[in-house]
Amino acid sequence: MVEQITSTQNQRVKLTKTLQTKARARRGERKMVLEGHRLIGDALSRNRRPLFAFYSESNEGTPLLNQLRAAGTELLPASDDVVKYVSDTENTSGLVGVFTIPMPELPNNPLRMLVLDAVREPGNMGTILRTAGAAGVELVILSPGCVDPYNPKVLRSGMGAHFRVPIVEASWQEIATFCESTQIFVATGDAEERYTSVDWTQPWTLIIGNEAHGVSDNARALGGIPVAIPMAESTESLNAAGATAVILFEAVRQRSIS
Amino acid sequence: MVEQITSTQNQRVKLTKTLQTKARARRGERKMVLEGHRLIGDALSRNRRPLFAFYSESNEGTPLLNQLRAAGTELLPASDDVVKYVSDTENTSGLVGVFTIPMPELPNNPLRMLVLDAVREPGNMGTILRTAGAAGVELVILSPGCVDPYNPKVLRSGMGAHFRVPIVEASWQEIATFCESTQIFVATGDAEERYTSVDWTQPWTLIIGNEAHGVSDNARALGGIPVAIPMAESTESLNAAGATAVILFEAVRQRSIS
Repeated sequence: MVEQITSTQNQRVKLTKTLQTKARARRGERKMVLEGHRLIGDALSRNRRPLFAFYSESNEGTPLLNQLRAAGTELLPASDDVVKYVSDTENTSGLVGVFTIPMPELPNNPLRMLVLDAVREPGNMGTILRTAGAAGVELVILSPGCVDPYNPKVLRSGMGAHFRVPIVEASWQEIATFCESTQIFVATGDAEERYTSVDWTQPWTLIIGNEAHGVSDNARALGGIPVAIPMAESTESLNAAGATAVILFEAVRQRSIS
Repeated sequence: MVEQITSTQNQRVKLTKTLQTKARARRGERKMVLEGHRLIGDALSRNRRPLFAFYSESNEGTPLLNQLRAAGTELLPASDDVVKYVSDTENTSGLVGVFTIPMPELPNNPLRMLVLDAVREPGNMGTILRTAGAAGVELVILSPGCVDPYNPKVLRSGMGAHFRVPIVEASWQEIATFCESTQIFVATGDAEERYTSVDWTQPWTLIIGNEAHGVSDNARALGGIPVAIPMAESTESLNAAGATAVILFEAVRQRSIS
């Protein structure tokens, strides 16, 4: 029986806390923290094991803990206070694992790419990543100024998309190279072209702008076609994640009938 | 010059704090609290004035404050601490107004209705209301078990939809009556029918289920047609707000070409 960790001065506890709170540490260590049975179970089902995981006594005997143990994961029993300390959620399930950030497997000649242009809000970013995975996007490219995709809130709302969709961070110059053999579309509120009247069965890149400021000059300089979602009244709008879902699933619809 | 409120024991301060934190108080008083220039300005442009509003010194001279003053709103200067106390946000803009909850104007024979079946998460509810407004939904019906739509987080993510779309709370029996002359569709993950293959140009009601448990037995008992959004892989899913946006804008698309 391993002894329960009760001190927040434990080296692994300190590392985990730092990974939860500092993007720079996640970047430097190439590690991220996943919490809860759903996210960790999802990772395990994709053959991603935590490097180590803390668990509270209440998790002893749960199927997932047994599965992690069988897979040879280093499991660290910890006091409720310690688990709470390394958790980013208000009501922790008592299971917190540290994972290596996956190296994206870049597809050759991806047909469907999504560029996020300085998307700042973690919940939006996570929801968009989840939607991108569900809609068959092959590569998500994050421009300079995006929130860290391995931020705990992004991981939570991403619901495992981080293991399903390749995510890369790139400069605008690199983005131009990524997109050069696709038709680029830019989601904006004020375009003449409707998103439903363009051809989504050809290779494309869709650019989604910042929540408050919309699409940047850098994004516009790529020369894509602006497309808009028509609204019931001119004062209406969708949030960034909603607009992305609407456009990506129009592309799915067009592929399914083409 | 009215004297600045500096005490949290002030009657209006106490009322506002209670409205921010207690659904029962909002229900009993039929009042809600809106914060910030965007939400309050949007309300004003729809001829909804606050009953009264607190403002911090930094708001003095802003166009919206002048507009509120010109409209005869009772404006209460308050110390930063008091404004922070009555605010629900972390970084308050220093403008907090108390409004009467609008009485929904029920449309005759609505053609497009959305039923939310025990949607619990305030951010989801607000985003869905915003999306419903943008997609031309004529009536949103909240089943028993939904989060209070005048919760401050719902109001924030609703972005003014509360003034644009009629919202009613109803029992399942009342919901059955509301929907009886429309075709009912139920969004589920496991339906055979795709949401793209049904006719959204006829009068319809769409039911969206709870985030964790999906659609309730009460909702299924209405006998609607289950419809699914096909995903790239079977393990993928959309969150409730994303799924709602995808389906509602497919209905918009069908109307625009019919």
